[in-house]
Amino acid sequence: MAQKGSALVGTGFIGPVHVEALRRLGRPVVGVLASSPAKSKQAAAALQLPRAYATYTELLADPDVAAVHLTSPNRFHFEQCRQALLARKHVICEKPLAMTTQETAELLALAEKTPAVAAVCYNIRFYPLCLEARERIRAGHLGDIYHVTGSYVQDWLLYDTDFNWRVLAAAGGALRAVADIGTHWLDLVQSITGLGVQRVCADLHTVLPTRRRPIPSPSPPGAEGAARGASLQTFQSKLQSTRDTEPVAITTEDYGSILLHFDATTPHPSLSPKRPEGDRGGARGCFTVSQVNAGRKNCLRFEIAGSSGALAWNSETPNELWLGQRDRPNEVLLRDPALMQPAVRPFADFPGGHNEGFPDSFKQLFRAIYDYIDRGDLQAPRPFPTFADGHREVVLCEAILKSQHERRWVETPRR
Amino acid sequence: MAQKGSALVGTGFIGPVHVEALRRLGRPVVGVLASSPAKSKQAAAALQLPRAYATYTELLADPDVAAVHLTSPNRFHFEQCRQALLARKHVICEKPLAMTTQETAELLALAEKTPAVAAVCYNIRFYPLCLEARERIRAGHLGDIYHVTGSYVQDWLLYDTDFNWRVLAAAGGALRAVADIGTHWLDLVQSITGLGVQRVCADLHTVLPTRRRPIPSPSPPGAEGAARGASLQTFQSKLQSTRDTEPVAITTEDYGSILLHFDATTPHPSLSPKRPEGDRGGARGCFTVSQVNAGRKNCLRFEIAGSSGALAWNSETPNELWLGQRDRPNEVLLRDPALMQPAVRPFADFPGGHNEGFPDSFKQLFRAIYDYIDRGDLQAPRPFPTFADGHREVVLCEAILKSQHERRWVETPRR
Amino acid sequence: MAQKGSALVGTGFIGPVHVEALRRLGRPVVGVLASSPAKSKQAAAALQLPRAYATYTELLADPDVAAVHLTSPNRFHFEQCRQALLARKHVICEKPLAMTTQETAELLALAEKTPAVAAVCYNIRFYPLCLEARERIRAGHLGDIYHVTGSYVQDWLLYDTDFNWRVLAAAGGALRAVADIGTHWLDLVQSITGLGVQRVCADLHTVLPTRRRPIPSPSPPGAEGAARGASLQTFQSKLQSTRDTEPVAITTEDYGSILLHFDATTPHPSLSPKRPEGDRGGARGCFTVSQVNAGRKNCLRFEIAGSSGALAWNSETPNELWLGQRDRPNEVLLRDPALMQPAVRPFADFPGGHNEGFPDSFKQLFRAIYDYIDRGDLQAPRPFPTFADGHREVVLCEAILKSQHERRWVETPRR
Amino acid sequence: MAQKGSALVGTGFIGPVHVEALRRLGRPVVGVLASSPAKSKQAAAALQLPRAYATYTELLADPDVAAVHLTSPNRFHFEQCRQALLARKHVICEKPLAMTTQETAELLALAEKTPAVAAVCYNIRFYPLCLEARERIRAGHLGDIYHVTGSYVQDWLLYDTDFNWRVLAAAGGALRAVADIGTHWLDLVQSITGLGVQRVCADLHTVLPTRRRPIPSPSPPGAEGAARGASLQTFQSKLQSTRDTEPVAITTEDYGSILLHFDATTPHPSLSPKRPEGDRGGARGCFTVSQVNAGRKNCLRFEIAGSSGALAWNSETPNELWLGQRDRPNEVLLRDPALMQPAVRPFADFPGGHNEGFPDSFKQLFRAIYDYIDRGDLQAPRPFPTFADGHREVVLCEAILKSQHERRWVETPRR
Repeated sequence: MAQKGSALVGTGFIGPVHVEALRRLGRPVVGVLASSPAKSKQAAAALQLPRAYATYTELLADPDVAAVHLTSPNRFHFEQCRQALLARKHVICEKPLAMTTQETAELLALAEKTPAVAAVCYNIRFYPLCLEARERIRAGHLGDIYHVTGSYVQDWLLYDTDFNWRVLAAAGGALRAVADIGTHWLDLVQSITGLGVQRVCADLHTVLPTRRRPIPSPSPPGAEGAARGASLQTFQSKLQSTRDTEPVAITTEDYGSILLHFDATTPHPSLSPKRPEGDRGGARGCFTVSQVNAGRKNCLRFEIAGSSGALAWNSETPNELWLGQRDRPNEVLLRDPALMQPAVRPFADFPGGHNEGFPDSFKQLFRAIYDYIDRGDLQAPRPFPTFADGHREVVLCEAILKSQHERRWVETPRR
Repeated sequence: MAQKGSALVGTGFIGPVHVEALRRLGRPVVGVLASSPAKSKQAAAALQLPRAYATYTELLADPDVAAVHLTSPNRFHFEQCRQALLARKHVICEKPLAMTTQETAELLALAEKTPAVAAVCYNIRFYPLCLEARERIRAGHLGDIYHVTGSYVQDWLLYDTDFNWRVLAAAGGALRAVADIGTHWLDLVQSITGLGVQRVCADLHTVLPTRRRPIPSPSPPGAEGAARGASLQTFQSKLQSTRDTEPVAITTEDYGSILLHFDATTPHPSLSPKRPEGDRGGARGCFTVSQVNAGRKNCLRFEIAGSSGALAWNSETPNELWLGQRDRPNEVLLRDPALMQPAVRPFADFPGGHNEGFPDSFKQLFRAIYDYIDRGDLQAPRPFPTFADGHREVVLCEAILKSQHERRWVETPRR
Repeated sequence: MAQKGSALVGTGFIGPVHVEALRRLGRPVVGVLASSPAKSKQAAAALQLPRAYATYTELLADPDVAAVHLTSPNRFHFEQCRQALLARKHVICEKPLAMTTQETAELLALAEKTPAVAAVCYNIRFYPLCLEARERIRAGHLGDIYHVTGSYVQDWLLYDTDFNWRVLAAAGGALRAVADIGTHWLDLVQSITGLGVQRVCADLHTVLPTRRRPIPSPSPPGAEGAARGASLQTFQSKLQSTRDTEPVAITTEDYGSILLHFDATTPHPSLSPKRPEGDRGGARGCFTVSQVNAGRKNCLRFEIAGSSGALAWNSETPNELWLGQRDRPNEVLLRDPALMQPAVRPFADFPGGHNEGFPDSFKQLFRAIYDYIDRGDLQAPRPFPTFADGHREVVLCEAILKSQHERRWVETPRR
Repeated sequence: MAQKGSALVGTGFIGPVHVEALRRLGRPVVGVLASSPAKSKQAAAALQLPRAYATYTELLADPDVAAVHLTSPNRFHFEQCRQALLARKHVICEKPLAMTTQETAELLALAEKTPAVAAVCYNIRFYPLCLEARERIRAGHLGDIYHVTGSYVQDWLLYDTDFNWRVLAAAGGALRAVADIGTHWLDLVQSITGLGVQRVCADLHTVLPTRRRPIPSPSPPGAEGAARGASLQTFQSKLQSTRDTEPVAITTEDYGSILLHFDATTPHPSLSPKRPEGDRGGARGCFTVSQVNAGRKNCLRFEIAGSSGALAWNSETPNELWLGQRDRPNEVLLRDPALMQPAVRPFADFPGGHNEGFPDSFKQLFRAIYDYIDRGDLQAPRPFPTFADGHREVVLCEAILKSQHERRWVETPRR
């Protein structure tokens, strides 16, 4: 193989999304590692990939592998990131970067001294109209940011018979809805506004304190790697027929609402020319996450209100950006390269009216990462989410959890 | 005049809305009281009403007046309600019922012993699809209520040159956005769900701590009643030409987000058949108010998520009710008497596709009140917002203000 | 009665809408005529009107009646209009003005020599955003008009058990969907664009050639006026329980689509500065009517595309006007007097975000008519639909019917 | 290369879309042919494809090529299809299949006797919710089909300075908007309803009879293949800076509206159980195409109304299917495999709320084609658009053109 390529770790829902996106970009995918050598072979065949790795060590030793895509379960991210960086591979890790800020801080420190790209897959940033929102705010279209509100809500865990490894704190962490989807929302609005969350006040709730876990049938030979009851994946679970279940106590939250204060100082001070000296300023905000909201399949919404305009977006209609005006009609920008900010056009591949969607966001994220790698200057600013962002989200999660436990406002550490 | 009728107090934006609504119902409007005898005469002529009262005493003494509609500034509500009840007139008072819970409690106690109707104008309840939402929840369509979220946002106070008496705490009270529009949201979701707000955690913010108040021109003779700079009314202010202004410090909030816990016990226990014994249950919620949200003219949104469905409504498209489903396509109910719950049909006057709007909500509210009066049984349950509701909203406002001052969760008194 | 007022003829669905709209404007309604003296009394009581007329002659002889509102069945319009004009009463007639162009031409001629207002109730023109569309086109915002498309569709006659006098050619005329709703669409787009329909090519279809007519129960004494099976009114019919029916052959159309050419010369030549001399120009168009379109309750849509912009509107969301742009984001104008053309503001009574709807369109139509009457100059241009418009729509209906019969394009007479 | 693969002909807007879609499916793309050997090399490099063909003959002689994707200019399709079939390659041809029915009939006859797949890229069929609409109609959810209406409108040719080879009849054919986008609409609604267009009555219009063609700069050496002024591609043209132009007379239509009658007999007679014997039945329809409709970027809409329901879809919000109901609330189905017909699920790759778009429709179309090829039975029914469909659309185009020329209804040949 003349061109070095990428390798995939993990074969759940999101792994094939990575493979497709890389292929669309003409980026070769060298091989795959699953939870066992046998499963690696199955996955390589299913995804039509050249190589099936027996172990992570073998993968890292493959000289044709320049970049590793980690889509393994969350609890493996830390060690796999660490080893990849030590092996000087570029790492593109699914969120969350790791399970604790201790881990993410260590990874961040390691990344900062390793000559490799270390990215986290906050793909939603790369919906073209989310990039457009950011550019418009950078250009001052909204003036000072006053408040940022929204939600990320789903219904795939509505019933107590809905089960997935993510609902168990031991497997997925103490936070669930906040960690799984809330972090996407937090990353997105911070990246768009250039503001950082400074303090939080959270109200979380486990709506269903008991869920029904399917009791697996006696395993057929060769199914050794399947974690117990761990494989009911998203929409497929909705199609499951009834089978035997057992009650399991759940401590992770189904719902959360969180009040937010944003930093007074922003990376883009030019946005706040009118605020008086010494004013602490500071945008406010609020958002809700829920995985028990009937009818909302995967619905991230935000609205950002500023001194001279507002904008709103909904992931279920991602090709429309609402632009609120006080003094003239509101606008609805249909995703259309001809109407977008020049900096965003390279990330919108199709003309206006030709919808782009969820898989395209990965394509654009990876385009940003791999074009950066191609340019060869690892000191240049990184136009994609990095381990610093991955660390930041876990910092916020810990602050949110502390706020929930102590029933009060909690400051978020600056780093 | 053979038929006794209604009298109007106040001639701002909402007064004529009352008159129109009464006339549509064929309910005679006898006369009007403005802020001076001269203004009463002007108003009577403009509204084509038979009588112009010189004083409130004169109005209450008119034997043709059976009901008094109070649309005067908030600070007069208490005394005007009190006197009307003492005069055994029915009272229909614009919100807020009064300025403090001391006042509202006194009015509530007086109302409970007076043989008259005492209503507060939470008109939004009477959008037909809000009534429909309530009936569907009562009928168990949503199962247990899990969470209630939403917002009420406007943009008419976006600029520091937007000025209105309501922005001054001395004139309108310590709370503004919460009191003016947030109370509508709170009343609405409580009336629809049958749940009561149990505790609150608020984050309020005065985005514009200084506003520019117009300096009035030297008053022409006879303009004695015009409060200084107090008359820039809603949308008209947006059309104002520039004139001289002076800075005024503002303490009332432009923005607020509030976390909510609802009572575990509801008036409709049949809704919660599946909750285990002893479970405290309790829906959660969150809402945002803002008067500086560009592009949102008068936008109240709520979404109520339950164990077997969800529903959502937006006051800017009030003829649509979104019904969220987990297991089948979501529904959008276009307001259509043929498709609505039987109890709601009497409050929807036009066939499907013939939009009803803001003025119709007053018509239906007054229909509920006056038909109740006609039936003659003042002991019957009152199918409209009463002084108990008016008191409740001020109780919630005081809890919200306390939460803001003390930066913590605050319990709301049961009464 | 000091002030002269209006009288109502007819008590179907639309009669009370007229009464309400007049009352909202403070215009006294003097009395009502129904299909019999007894029914007139019932109607007067139900609508709380002072007088019940025994005959039309008695109504016209009432000196307190200045204006007559005709909401009687279509076949009575001609004679009732004629007599009212001969009695020098103002006439406000529901559409259609009469049954044939012979009749409408005679009425138009009579109206032109009678010193009275003669109006036809094309109320949809008076949705504020339809007025706004017209003003924007007059101001040149769309440039040359290229094409005008749309539809008016309903579902209240979807089933063969849906029955109403309108389905019978003998009672309602040879055309039904085109006459009942299509004429609204035609009037609306012509009034908005200032263009006239020049020729048509129609395709009409009676989807249900047989319908089931309810067999009335033996009439109780006093029900002498009820036409046989004629009273299943709109949405109420949807709630009917099953009863005995008989088959009736239907010849009126359930569906029609019509190709349109518009006049090259327009009343607003300033709109066409760029067209070369001698160019025949001429906008094109197309629209569909249907009364068997499931899920569309009363849905009129139009889209007007011009050389420098487009606009679209939907009667089911009447507070939004879509403004299409080539070179910048599209706009959605929420009905808001502060954002509308100055000429339209007097016809929008409520601030932005406070929805107006179907009943408000009648209020504004009658405001235009009665304010015109008040001004006292009957030579002034009439800012409302007149008998000329009423005649025009019947001219178009006859051309459409001819086109359908002859399966070809048909020119519409200029007058 | 172990696995035989596909080769691409043509490198305009749609060529790379094919390559991406094939790659997502893991289908190897072997090489590319552009308009010259030099351009083939450029394209192979840009698209990262292994081989650059010098000639079509060389491409067809490549034993690694099993399938040919034709995205060349329309006028080359006939000869390229013919040669590919003679070489026993599978052919996947962009629409239109050829320039005349003489050509398409010849290709159809050749395809029917050649053991290869011969497909035409009516990709819109493969939006999952279009497949869903078809399955629902097949399952009888809509009952008898009454009427089918809609439009396909764009704005990329709004200005007379918008130029593209497609506007010239000599290059693109006598029809333009109808052929380019109207055929997509016709194919789509026929494939969804199972009904065939029986006769048409068309009204076409060249809104801009003169356009401004850019005068090319003196060609640099090596640009020999660039047709004069022919390369202003879709949205890129909107970003062009001003340059010298010359007027060109245009005869192809910018706008068209077409009345439709559908066959009484359908491929799915089970859909019409209730129609009486001998009834000619026959759905009606109407649609509009325009390329001068400001604000509509690429907007295909259809609405299908039947005896027991209706459905509507809009390509600008392709993840929503509107389901109209008479007797209960309308539904909006968000694309969600868990809620879709089982036959459609294999063509929806992502869970509900994860939007799919334009590029995904090609992926699914090619999945249907290549999975069919893999199954190895070329006698099996073909679940994708074939040359029979490609021929059918040209038959309809010729009928439409004849109707336009003769200003009358024209029957469409059955074959």
